[in-house]
Amino acid sequence: MATIERPTGFRPAPGERVAIAAGAGRLPVELAEALAAHGHRPYIIIIEGEADAAEPSFVRHEHWVMPLERVGELAARLRSAGVTHLVMAGGIERRPRLSRVRPSLGILHMAPRVAASLARGDDNLLRSIVRYYESVGLKVLGAHEILPDLLAPPGRLTRRAPTKADLDDLKAAAIAARAIGALDIGQAAVAIAGRAIALEGIEGTDGLLERVRGLRSHGRLAGRGGGVLVKCAKPSQELRADLPTIGPDTVGMAHRAGLAGIGVEADRSIVLDMGAVVKRADELGLFVIGLVEKDWTA
Amino acid sequence: MATIERPTGFRPAPGERVAIAAGAGRLPVELAEALAAHGHRPYIIIIEGEADAAEPSFVRHEHWVMPLERVGELAARLRSAGVTHLVMAGGIERRPRLSRVRPSLGILHMAPRVAASLARGDDNLLRSIVRYYESVGLKVLGAHEILPDLLAPPGRLTRRAPTKADLDDLKAAAIAARAIGALDIGQAAVAIAGRAIALEGIEGTDGLLERVRGLRSHGRLAGRGGGVLVKCAKPSQELRADLPTIGPDTVGMAHRAGLAGIGVEADRSIVLDMGAVVKRADELGLFVIGLVEKDWTA
Repeated sequence: MATIERPTGFRPAPGERVAIAAGAGRLPVELAEALAAHGHRPYIIIIEGEADAAEPSFVRHEHWVMPLERVGELAARLRSAGVTHLVMAGGIERRPRLSRVRPSLGILHMAPRVAASLARGDDNLLRSIVRYYESVGLKVLGAHEILPDLLAPPGRLTRRAPTKADLDDLKAAAIAARAIGALDIGQAAVAIAGRAIALEGIEGTDGLLERVRGLRSHGRLAGRGGGVLVKCAKPSQELRADLPTIGPDTVGMAHRAGLAGIGVEADRSIVLDMGAVVKRADELGLFVIGLVEKDWTA
Repeated sequence: MATIERPTGFRPAPGERVAIAAGAGRLPVELAEALAAHGHRPYIIIIEGEADAAEPSFVRHEHWVMPLERVGELAARLRSAGVTHLVMAGGIERRPRLSRVRPSLGILHMAPRVAASLARGDDNLLRSIVRYYESVGLKVLGAHEILPDLLAPPGRLTRRAPTKADLDDLKAAAIAARAIGALDIGQAAVAIAGRAIALEGIEGTDGLLERVRGLRSHGRLAGRGGGVLVKCAKPSQELRADLPTIGPDTVGMAHRAGLAGIGVEADRSIVLDMGAVVKRADELGLFVIGLVEKDWTA
């Protein structure tokens, strides 16, 4: 396994304060706990309907349960809370209905960019949001800048290693995942027998794996075992938001879909709870590998 | 609606005989009926498990119900039946298990190419099959060479015309469909609100539309109406096999998926039973349009 230089974790200096914009899933919780473990008191923006508003690791800190439609008030709230740094973490399944967004000075600045980005796609939307918060004086951090161990390292994480046929599948799926990433459609693809057979759209990775599970009974897949899930960052990925992510549940779903393993782009993907991911994969006999460029170009 | 030069239908000359390799669906039936209507007696290869072995338009002619695994015998059978031209039509859902393919002189020639193509993907497989049959002296025809009216013409077919927003969706979906076609993954994509949200993999177009129907309840789509299905030929499409195809059922499924209309690549897509497609679309209020290059490049 190649070794590379890993970033050291960001820790707020005196006078700095981190806000976590918390969507769904474990990532914002882990961030809150990591910051609290270092004696920091983060400000938590609990995105309504996405993050758990009763999560103890959130509510022990100053927090605001924010309806997405009231995002225009956020800049002012962060300013009065003394926030200097913002990290966005966790999934956002819903989209705000722009018609319900309340007018505010913040939103008047933000809305044209956000509306234009919504029309263009996900990645541009996140870039616009990052640029907006930078324009009001905040430093925007990626989750991996606070928790560098979240990033997938290059090379194999598990006891099981990919076979020659698995490597062909990893290459085919990575090429497909990168192609749809370039179009800002999705980040994940499944390949079986050397061929990409299912691509991630708006349904997300769980939906993709559920579909592959169903396809196992499909005539064209009958008798074909194995296959892989690959997640890659978009070529133009905004690294401070929406990095490709897997966790222990991804391993379980990949197993139920009959796959032999998972590849994630090294250093540009997040592995949530890596210890549990490796343990689960080892128990189920799957491989997990951090892919580098030669894995899809060679 | 632009007019272009349309091919005139191929009709066998005296001493020529057409064989139809019949997969699933209406297309091989329409071909058999069209040839019979012109007094020709085609030879029908009814692919077992795909085409209906009791179809009257097949069994009135000389035919063979062929298990895919016995494809190696086909060249000799066609030769003794006096076949000079071969047209492959209809879907093949299953893949032959190579381990079950019986050895024969034909398959010994064919198998290395087919095995290599299976490893590379669909389009190469079809090209290899076409080249194999050409190498044994057959002329391989596309279904549209016999029935040129099958090809989608450029421009709108229906009463309803796409709006400006629909045109944006058509462009986004066509770009996505062509990108996955270039990778030989699929031919179809669905775009909603200017963005491709679902891509066709091995599940096929019906599976894609079924998925979009389910996604309507998904948070990211909630409240977004409309959207389009687009099917495009692969940039390197073998035009004598596997052209993108829609039919009346596609219109019904697109409607149930909440879409506003369908775009197909003009002159490189098949519209099965065009009269019924237009009637169904007009009844349901959908548009159907034949797309040309400027529709995805402008």
